[in-house]
Amino acid sequence: MDLIQNGWFSEINELWPGQAMSLAVEKVLHHEKSKYQDILLFESKSYGRVLVLDGVIQTTDRDEHSYQEMITFLPLNSHPNPQKVLLIGGGDGGVVREIVKHPAVQSVVQCEIDEKVIEVSKKYLPNLAEGYKSDKLTQHIGDGFEFMRKHKGEFDVIITDSSDPVGPAESLFQRSYYDLMKSALKPGGIVCTQGECLWLHLKLIKEMQDFCRELYPVVSYGFTTIPTYPSGQIGFMLCSLNPDTSFKEPVYKFSEADVEKMGLKYYNTDVHRAAFILPQFASKVLRS
Amino acid sequence: MDLIQNGWFSEINELWPGQAMSLAVEKVLHHEKSKYQDILLFESKSYGRVLVLDGVIQTTDRDEHSYQEMITFLPLNSHPNPQKVLLIGGGDGGVVREIVKHPAVQSVVQCEIDEKVIEVSKKYLPNLAEGYKSDKLTQHIGDGFEFMRKHKGEFDVIITDSSDPVGPAESLFQRSYYDLMKSALKPGGIVCTQGECLWLHLKLIKEMQDFCRELYPVVSYGFTTIPTYPSGQIGFMLCSLNPDTSFKEPVYKFSEADVEKMGLKYYNTDVHRAAFILPQFASKVLRS
Repeated sequence: MDLIQNGWFSEINELWPGQAMSLAVEKVLHHEKSKYQDILLFESKSYGRVLVLDGVIQTTDRDEHSYQEMITFLPLNSHPNPQKVLLIGGGDGGVVREIVKHPAVQSVVQCEIDEKVIEVSKKYLPNLAEGYKSDKLTQHIGDGFEFMRKHKGEFDVIITDSSDPVGPAESLFQRSYYDLMKSALKPGGIVCTQGECLWLHLKLIKEMQDFCRELYPVVSYGFTTIPTYPSGQIGFMLCSLNPDTSFKEPVYKFSEADVEKMGLKYYNTDVHRAAFILPQFASKVLRS
Repeated sequence: MDLIQNGWFSEINELWPGQAMSLAVEKVLHHEKSKYQDILLFESKSYGRVLVLDGVIQTTDRDEHSYQEMITFLPLNSHPNPQKVLLIGGGDGGVVREIVKHPAVQSVVQCEIDEKVIEVSKKYLPNLAEGYKSDKLTQHIGDGFEFMRKHKGEFDVIITDSSDPVGPAESLFQRSYYDLMKSALKPGGIVCTQGECLWLHLKLIKEMQDFCRELYPVVSYGFTTIPTYPSGQIGFMLCSLNPDTSFKEPVYKFSEADVEKMGLKYYNTDVHRAAFILPQFASKVLRS
């Protein structure tokens, strides 16, 4: 297993050349090649359990809440009544766990291509797989493109929790995918997708934003901090069919008591607003 | 040179156990042990030149602007008239470069304990050492404690650009240091110090905040994103003797034209405000 040397897992990848995050490994709990990807799960020394797909860290116990909460509540709280949600990907279960917490959500359909990820998560990542117990959830194992072609105009919000734009998730960063999501939305619907990192992929993000703006009347880019993703941050591309949407100002405002009751660790209403304030180098490129 | 193996520099340190940022090394340009610390400077594959002190990354060409601009303009723009500034540390010159850009600043005194860092920066980091050309600058090689004991009530703003709380910078994270800075400030003065990382050192930050609140009427904690610092973020402890200071709302507001003219890459007025919005897990601990 080349990914682990001298007791350290290192995330070396051409998507972020010349840099690597390393985590000290306590014990490898699972390693297999599924039909779609290499799945590695290990117990780390200081980040709890770590899920790695094709050599890239997907989630660690210690910081996963930042990503799961932000990719969920940035779009859901920007929609006045997010009753019906579609999740593409998210096989570890963490985003399902957050979606079903939202008081307006009545149903969530998850479409995940690799059932092995779900199995591994259920076995080794109980905190994430918790969402799989919800009776609001319907699961579909298969390709997101195919699924959406058969489900037009059905969803209030579509969240795409994918890996990076190589391998099985490559097509999820392209215009045709955003076009297809648009067709699967109800009027006024919102999409939110994993949107890589400002510090690493600003050119890709700008290209995505440009085609999104041709498809949707409102497009914004927000981000969150997360130590075990490359460069310590990850962003989200948000698009709305409702021209009155302002992603910076949530329409659904969680009170301090809501946040406490839902057990949120990263997201709150102020954090929502601040997520859309980009560093000058990025805001210059993305606002134009 | 143990820090570099198989062409990669890895930042392994007990301050962030079980995790390490690694950078691919093109060429080592300088390595010495000064009277105070181990100084390493290398050309990296994708982050430009990198300065490492005692095994910890201090600055890279690619992301240094985030830290330098934020540690400078968060305090300076929270002061109505920051004419006289003291910088403790900051041997690479990057913070001096930013301080002297501020239109209100008339003079800056830098007190750096290790003149070798200044020498190395002047030789290998011209973009950072640029600030050393300013005629607003007076340099003093020596200990910050000693310097401040002899300079009471002199400064509008004191910025501490230090390494981590081990080795030469350990005492800069203690109450006695904040007490001494208080005595070196003019009435209404402001201090800003490098304040470690919310994701890693929340307990230390909380302890520091507690003693700061005993010393200063206004205390806030802000942060910035920066890929090559541990966990991808670094924070700042800000204290003011002026009870009317609100760090979240700058009194000195740079316009878009100012930001452009000053060549800022990270800081702008919105970024200033957002820097003080902390993730729920941190805001719960630090507001109490």
